[in-house]
Amino acid sequence: MVIEFWFSIGSTYSYLTVMRIEDVAQEAGAEVRWRPFDVRHVMVTQNNVPFKDKPVKAAYMWRDIERRAPRYGLSPRLPAPYPLAELVFANRVATLGAQQGWVADYTRATYRRWFEAGQPAGEEPNLSESLAEIGLDPETVIREAGTPDIEARLQEATAEAMDLGVFGAPSFVVGEEVFWGDDRLEDALDWARRGRLDQARHGGGARPPGLSR
Amino acid sequence: MVIEFWFSIGSTYSYLTVMRIEDVAQEAGAEVRWRPFDVRHVMVTQNNVPFKDKPVKAAYMWRDIERRAPRYGLSPRLPAPYPLAELVFANRVATLGAQQGWVADYTRATYRRWFEAGQPAGEEPNLSESLAEIGLDPETVIREAGTPDIEARLQEATAEAMDLGVFGAPSFVVGEEVFWGDDRLEDALDWARRGRLDQARHGGGARPPGLSR
Repeated sequence: MVIEFWFSIGSTYSYLTVMRIEDVAQEAGAEVRWRPFDVRHVMVTQNNVPFKDKPVKAAYMWRDIERRAPRYGLSPRLPAPYPLAELVFANRVATLGAQQGWVADYTRATYRRWFEAGQPAGEEPNLSESLAEIGLDPETVIREAGTPDIEARLQEATAEAMDLGVFGAPSFVVGEEVFWGDDRLEDALDWARRGRLDQARHGGGARPPGLSR
Repeated sequence: MVIEFWFSIGSTYSYLTVMRIEDVAQEAGAEVRWRPFDVRHVMVTQNNVPFKDKPVKAAYMWRDIERRAPRYGLSPRLPAPYPLAELVFANRVATLGAQQGWVADYTRATYRRWFEAGQPAGEEPNLSESLAEIGLDPETVIREAGTPDIEARLQEATAEAMDLGVFGAPSFVVGEEVFWGDDRLEDALDWARRGRLDQARHGGGARPPGLSR
């Protein structure tokens, strides 16, 4: 059972998902495919930019993340730097990581620095320190992430996201179904298991997946 | 313990909330204050119109509601007519209902016709049939809802919503905290009870409030 996790480093709510999805999916018996794409390109194309020139909604977003983070055992320093100047490069590195098998580790490391140490993702010192932390040579990775091949792969993934009906991040794709938002991760896992939402998953009294250990 | 429920008849996700909030709040020991306002005015003012000229996001919204409705025992006929031509008048009637004590009954009745019978709220036959169903004289109510006093009260409520930081519907206000979206109702009730989110409320295995009877 596979759940496609479409994300962009640069998306704020994706912080909550990036830090918990592997635990939650494992408890649900699902495998996660990490799919980086360029959400900014999609949102500009679709006239659906969420926070720019919307100060009230942006302030709410930070407060909403702040209230929800403790539920997942997270302690972000908010607001994090936003928007990211190097969103595209951050996701080129993730694209290379998806090819080479370290996308999840890199994405968690760079989000932690972005949200917990105030260092923008996709640029120094976040970039090299995150790569070094997961055992990679930053110089090599940065060179490979800058090649036209990786640029093209990220663009292809972004086109594929749009074909699937993905319009924001984080999104989860299960078969033909798209689920948008960190708050829909449990819905997506319900769908992966039984092709419908589980009435028992929301509002109940038990501990959430990922927090039971 | 009071939770302010800021809604606009015309908001699609509010269907899910309108039909369940009294049950869910009762189980949580909270009292609901129904606060109609003109969300369209707020969204236009704040450059935050959610679905117009955003067909991918709009299609997702209908599918998301369709998937979630069975969780609350609801069977809508989707998509419902949207947007509502008579959004403002529908909410003037709700404003009068808030004064006179029948706002919840009217709002449920008119949403049921809108989402389950395909009749737009705020106009005939939905308007008179919803009012008659809850024991009111439609002609009298429609005349009173058209007075400058009610027009002013709806505008005042809309200004109050913006002062509170409400930017969309449905929203829940608990003290100084704003929670936006049907999917934040449980968060708002957590906050009302203990001033933080309950880690146990999401993703667990028990039945949700409002579905246990």
